[in-house]
Amino acid sequence: MLQALELSQATRLINHGPVVMVSAKAGGVENVMSAAWACALDYAPARVTVVLDKGAFTRGLLEQSGWFALQVPLAAQAETVLAVGSQSRKNNPAKLGDCGVKLFYQAGFDVPLVQGCGAYLICRLLPEPHNQQTYDLFIGEVAAVWADDRVYADGRWLFDSVPDELKTLHYVGNGLFYRTGKGLKVG
Amino acid sequence: MLQALELSQATRLINHGPVVMVSAKAGGVENVMSAAWACALDYAPARVTVVLDKGAFTRGLLEQSGWFALQVPLAAQAETVLAVGSQSRKNNPAKLGDCGVKLFYQAGFDVPLVQGCGAYLICRLLPEPHNQQTYDLFIGEVAAVWADDRVYADGRWLFDSVPDELKTLHYVGNGLFYRTGKGLKVG
Repeated sequence: MLQALELSQATRLINHGPVVMVSAKAGGVENVMSAAWACALDYAPARVTVVLDKGAFTRGLLEQSGWFALQVPLAAQAETVLAVGSQSRKNNPAKLGDCGVKLFYQAGFDVPLVQGCGAYLICRLLPEPHNQQTYDLFIGEVAAVWADDRVYADGRWLFDSVPDELKTLHYVGNGLFYRTGKGLKVG
Repeated sequence: MLQALELSQATRLINHGPVVMVSAKAGGVENVMSAAWACALDYAPARVTVVLDKGAFTRGLLEQSGWFALQVPLAAQAETVLAVGSQSRKNNPAKLGDCGVKLFYQAGFDVPLVQGCGAYLICRLLPEPHNQQTYDLFIGEVAAVWADDRVYADGRWLFDSVPDELKTLHYVGNGLFYRTGKGLKVG
């Protein structure tokens, strides 16, 4: 079940470098893409960066609406992550259905979210035209955060106790992911 | 043994979201810090981002010299990663020795590198004063890349066959890391 988290926990959800899915909506049109190049930027206010190619359909949606979501998929969703990262809605308007993506919304936010992910960050775009044009780099301020209590509870990921299909994913390229592995506590 | 790689492979070394160590040198002074918030930014030219707090001693060094390195530590180095990420050279000029860091240099680059890491990216700072001041966000263009052939060979990481201590690390916080886990190939 999804649990709302304090914004102070937002960066922890992506701190370990998982691949994410990026979603946005504008003019009634929804889309989702994958991105390996997303990163925490600040704790308070909670901010994130994500790199979105100029050819990405989703980029246009978040530029129009000023809102997007980062969501952290689980290993069970690896095929979907690769599919929404490989296809473009520019070529296939039925992309989301073809990729098996089911969307939902959280109250108060007109930002589509992908069912089945481990964590969700809804973000307001902080417009930085130079970064966006020169580097395809987008900055978001986190407005709301949820995590699935199967994989995240009491302020921490549960990767040492969940089965493989509930681990998060780290993308390498060419369809190869690594699952988040064993914990290592220092100090 | 370290093998020089084509610059086109630079992003692959950090694509899976590992914690990195950031090193720099200016005026004869060397330092190293850890950073979980480093990310690929572009393939060609190969570029990376890294977030460096205004209090970080290493930040001053790379601002002065215009050069820095990102290096990808292995699990065997977890204590060092935490130590150089927790202490500041501002308070302890003997930080590197106290943390057990041994540096080396590659020919042609006056940028210190930490012995024992899995991969190295030497980067030229692309000055972006607005990003640096407002977001503590630094952009580097990759000038040279090496990887240790115990963990990376023939253009790919070897995480499915290396022992635990040679896996890369994903930092969560409070001294907790996750090692890179099992591979998952889709398609």
